[in-house]
Amino acid sequence: MDITKIIIGLHISTSHDAPLYVQLANCLAAKIKDSTLPRGTKLPPERELAKMLKISRTTTLSSYRLLEERGLIQSKMGSGTYVNDSTKPTVDGSMAWDQLFSPQYKSPMASLLRTLIAAPTAEETISLAAGMPDPSFYPLDLIELAFTKRKDDFTRTDYGYIATEGYFPLRQAIAKWQSQFGSQATPDQILIVSGSQQGLYLTVKAFIEQQDYVIVESPTYLGAIQALEAAGARILTLPDSDHLDLELLEDYLIRYRPKLMYTIPTFQNPTGRVMSLDDRQALIELATRYRLVIIEDDPYSLLYYEKPAPPSLKSLDTYGGVIYIGTFSKTLLPGLRTGWVTAAQPVINRLAQEKQHVDLHSNNLAQFILLVCIEENILADHLTKVRSEYKKRRDAMVHALRRYCKETIDFSVPAGGFYIWCKIKHPISVTELMHRAAVSRVAFVPGIAFYTNGTHSNEIRLCFATHNEELLKEGIRRIGQLLMTLSTNKIQPCPAAGLPLI
Amino acid sequence: MDITKIIIGLHISTSHDAPLYVQLANCLAAKIKDSTLPRGTKLPPERELAKMLKISRTTTLSSYRLLEERGLIQSKMGSGTYVNDSTKPTVDGSMAWDQLFSPQYKSPMASLLRTLIAAPTAEETISLAAGMPDPSFYPLDLIELAFTKRKDDFTRTDYGYIATEGYFPLRQAIAKWQSQFGSQATPDQILIVSGSQQGLYLTVKAFIEQQDYVIVESPTYLGAIQALEAAGARILTLPDSDHLDLELLEDYLIRYRPKLMYTIPTFQNPTGRVMSLDDRQALIELATRYRLVIIEDDPYSLLYYEKPAPPSLKSLDTYGGVIYIGTFSKTLLPGLRTGWVTAAQPVINRLAQEKQHVDLHSNNLAQFILLVCIEENILADHLTKVRSEYKKRRDAMVHALRRYCKETIDFSVPAGGFYIWCKIKHPISVTELMHRAAVSRVAFVPGIAFYTNGTHSNEIRLCFATHNEELLKEGIRRIGQLLMTLSTNKIQPCPAAGLPLI
Repeated sequence: MDITKIIIGLHISTSHDAPLYVQLANCLAAKIKDSTLPRGTKLPPERELAKMLKISRTTTLSSYRLLEERGLIQSKMGSGTYVNDSTKPTVDGSMAWDQLFSPQYKSPMASLLRTLIAAPTAEETISLAAGMPDPSFYPLDLIELAFTKRKDDFTRTDYGYIATEGYFPLRQAIAKWQSQFGSQATPDQILIVSGSQQGLYLTVKAFIEQQDYVIVESPTYLGAIQALEAAGARILTLPDSDHLDLELLEDYLIRYRPKLMYTIPTFQNPTGRVMSLDDRQALIELATRYRLVIIEDDPYSLLYYEKPAPPSLKSLDTYGGVIYIGTFSKTLLPGLRTGWVTAAQPVINRLAQEKQHVDLHSNNLAQFILLVCIEENILADHLTKVRSEYKKRRDAMVHALRRYCKETIDFSVPAGGFYIWCKIKHPISVTELMHRAAVSRVAFVPGIAFYTNGTHSNEIRLCFATHNEELLKEGIRRIGQLLMTLSTNKIQPCPAAGLPLI
Repeated sequence: MDITKIIIGLHISTSHDAPLYVQLANCLAAKIKDSTLPRGTKLPPERELAKMLKISRTTTLSSYRLLEERGLIQSKMGSGTYVNDSTKPTVDGSMAWDQLFSPQYKSPMASLLRTLIAAPTAEETISLAAGMPDPSFYPLDLIELAFTKRKDDFTRTDYGYIATEGYFPLRQAIAKWQSQFGSQATPDQILIVSGSQQGLYLTVKAFIEQQDYVIVESPTYLGAIQALEAAGARILTLPDSDHLDLELLEDYLIRYRPKLMYTIPTFQNPTGRVMSLDDRQALIELATRYRLVIIEDDPYSLLYYEKPAPPSLKSLDTYGGVIYIGTFSKTLLPGLRTGWVTAAQPVINRLAQEKQHVDLHSNNLAQFILLVCIEENILADHLTKVRSEYKKRRDAMVHALRRYCKETIDFSVPAGGFYIWCKIKHPISVTELMHRAAVSRVAFVPGIAFYTNGTHSNEIRLCFATHNEELLKEGIRRIGQLLMTLSTNKIQPCPAAGLPLI
C-alpha cells in the first residue's frame, strides 16, 4: 500500500463549495471506510500531507482534527497519526430519545395513514383501500398547457414570501367558484391551506382544549377522529342512520355543551350517505340556537353520479358558525396539496395566526396552478369527465358485488363519492378477515378503522375510484371468495396494521 | 318593473355544475341585492315561476325555500311571496368567537411576521427589514428549463399521495448534497418539510412540554422565540459574544437540565456571527456529556462572502443529538416552501408522525423542482452568482454606513448572510425611532424584536439582500439623517407593529 500514491490521487479542489479541509477529511474518511487505508495505518504528518497536496498546513491540520472528532483517526503524542483501531459507538445509539420526546397521543391506527404509502404490497394485490383518485385521470398535460399560457400573470415577487392567508387572486377565484353552489363567502372569509388535512388540523388547534366535547358521526373519517382525540377532545357519536337524530343531537347540546360538531354531509366517508336538505336546515337551526360550531368537511360533493347533492351547510349558514373545509385533491389531483377553509373572519384570522407558525404560507406554485385550473375551466371540464368515469366504476363494483357477494355482503349504492360501505352478513373475526385478504391479494379498509373506542364492526370500505373496471371486478371476486371460506369464529376486534385509511 | 321580463332573462342551465334550484336562487338573490327586485316586491307563485322558466315546480319551490332560509324573501300565508323588507343580522355577528377559541399564546410580536407581507408601505419606502432574497435573482427560467428537461422522470403516481417523509429521490439528493460539507447523514435520516419554519414547528412539538427549559442565543431569530414560548418553554439565554460562554452553558445544563438548545451557528440572524470550529467542538462535547438536544438552524451558511464557514454542528455530531434544519429559501427562492430536517432516525420518525397530522406530506411539485435544481447544478451555479452579488451589496451598505452613520452607528462587517447588526451609539426611544423611520420612508427591524422578555435594545437589523446598491445607499442615507435628528429622550421599549421579522 503506497500511501503517497493514495493521497496524491485524492480529489479536492478550490472550485467546490465545501472548504478544502472538509473535502480532504471526507476523502480520507472514504478511504478509511473502504479499507484502502486500513486500521492502524500511520498517516503522514500534517506538514508532509500539506506538501504532497500543495495546500496549506492549516488545512491539513484542520482535516486531521475533523477526522479525530469523528473518531476515525488518533494522534498519539510523539508517535504520529494513525487510522483508528476501534470505532466509536453508532451515533444513533447514545441518546435516549423516548425520554426526551414530549408525550404523544398513541392511536392504534395512528401510523396507518403513513403505512398506506410506504407499505409494500404483495405483487398483484388489488387495493380497494386508499381513497386515491386514478392517476391516469390527473390532467397533467392540460395543467401544463394552461400554466404555460398564464405564467406571465405571476410576478417574481409572487415567488417569494406571500400572505399567510393565501394568494389573493386564488381566494377570489375560490369565492367565485363556490358562489355558483350557493356560498356567499367573500375572499376575506377564505383561507388557503396546505390540503384539507391542514384545514382540519388548524381548526382543531384553534378550538379544542383538553376535555372539550365534540360530536361526530359514527362511523366517520379516521383522520378527524385522530385529530380530535390527539387534542384531548371527548367524543360524542351520532349513529349511522337515514336521518339525522335531532333529538339525540339536542340532548348532547343541552347536556354537554360540545364545542363543535364534525360532519361530512355529502357522500360521507365511509358510508356514502347524503344528509337531506331538511336535515341540513334543521341542523343549522339547532346549531344557531346552541351556538354550535360545525366543521363541514367536503372533499366529494362534486363527484355526484345521479344528481347534484343539496347545498352545503356553509351555503345555508345564517348564524356564521359553519367552518367549511374544501379541497380539489379527490377531484383534480392530490399532488397540489392545496385546499381552503371558508369561515367567519374572526375564525380565518385565528387560523391564519396558527398557520403562520406551522409553515408561513402554502406553496406558491401550487396556488398559482389551482388558480389557473379554476379560471381556465380545466376544473369544470375535468369534473364532467371524471364523474362519468367514476360512475361507470361504481356501477361495475355494484354489479360485481351483486354477482360475487350476494350471500355475504349487504350494501347501498352510493349516489357519489369514492366508496361502497359493505356490511358482511355473518359475524367475522377482523384479524382473520385481514389475514385472508392479504393471502387473497386484495386490500380494503376494515370498518373498525372508522369508529372510536374500539367499537367492533363487521363492515368494510371499498374504494372504486383508483382502478379500472376489470381490476375492480377481479378484486370483488377475490373478496367474494374469501368471505365464503371465512370461518365464523369468535369475533375479535383488533386494529389492522398497514392499511390505508384516507 | 316588469317581473316577467326580469325572470325570463335569468341565466340558469342544466349544463352547469350547480343544481338548477341553487342557480335560480342565486340569480334571484343577485337581483334582490342590486335592487332590480326591490324590497316588498311580490314574486310569482312557484307554479307560475316554473311555467315561466320551463322548469319543474319542485325546483322553484326549493329555490324559494333557499331564499327564505337566507332571509331574502318571505312567504306570507294566503298572501304570497315577497322580497323581504328587513335583512337578517350579519352572519359574522352572532357567534362569540373569542369565548370559543382555545387559549392562544399572545406575543406582542406575534402578528409581525404576517404584517410584513400584508402591511402596505408608504410609496417609495425603502425596506431593509424583511430577510427577503432579491426576486430578480430567482432563477425561474433555469428552473423551468431544467424541469421541462426532467419532467418525464416523475410518474403520474408521483403526483398523488406520497410518503410523509418526502419523495425518496429528493431525500437521497439532499443527503448527497450535504455530504460535500461533511454531513454523514443517510437518506432515512432526512425528513422533507414545508419550509424550515415547519421543521422548527414540528421539532418543538415533538420535544417541548410546558415548563421545559431551553437555551437560546440572545438575540436570536424571533420565529424561534415565538415557537418555543408558544409551547410553554422557559428560556435561558446566552448573551451575544465573540466566544461561546461555555461556563454559563454548563451551569445551565447542570442547574436546569434544559431539553434543548436552539442555535444558528453560521451567519446568525440577526448578529451575523459565526461560531468558531473550536466552539462548535466544545459545544458538541458538552452536549454529548449532558445529552443536550441541539436544534441547528442553518439558512445562510452557503452565503459566505470571504471564505466558507466551519462545518455544521451536524457534521461534527458524534453523539447523535443534533437536529439540523436546512432550507434553500434564502439561497434559491422562498416560493419552493420546501426544507428538510437531518436527525437521528427515531427523531425523523417522530417528526414524520407529527407532520402527517399537519399536512400529510409536503408539496409534490416543489419537491420535484428542488430535486431537479440540485441534480442539474442550478443550485451550485446559482450560489456562485448570488454570493458575488450579495457581497457587493454588503459592501455597498458597509460603505454607506461608514459615510452616513459614522457618528451614530457601530457595526461589524458580517462574513456572510443577509444582515448587518447595528448598534446605535446614543440612547434611543424605540417608539420615536420607528415613527421617524416611517416618516423618513425607510424600514428596518428594531433590535427589541430579537430578544425575549421585553429586553430593551438600541440595535437595529438591516437587510442588504433585497435591493440594488443605489437603493441600499439611499436607505442608509435616510437612516443616517433620521438618527442625527433623533432626540435623546427617555428610552421607551415597546413592540413595533407592522414590521417584518423574517
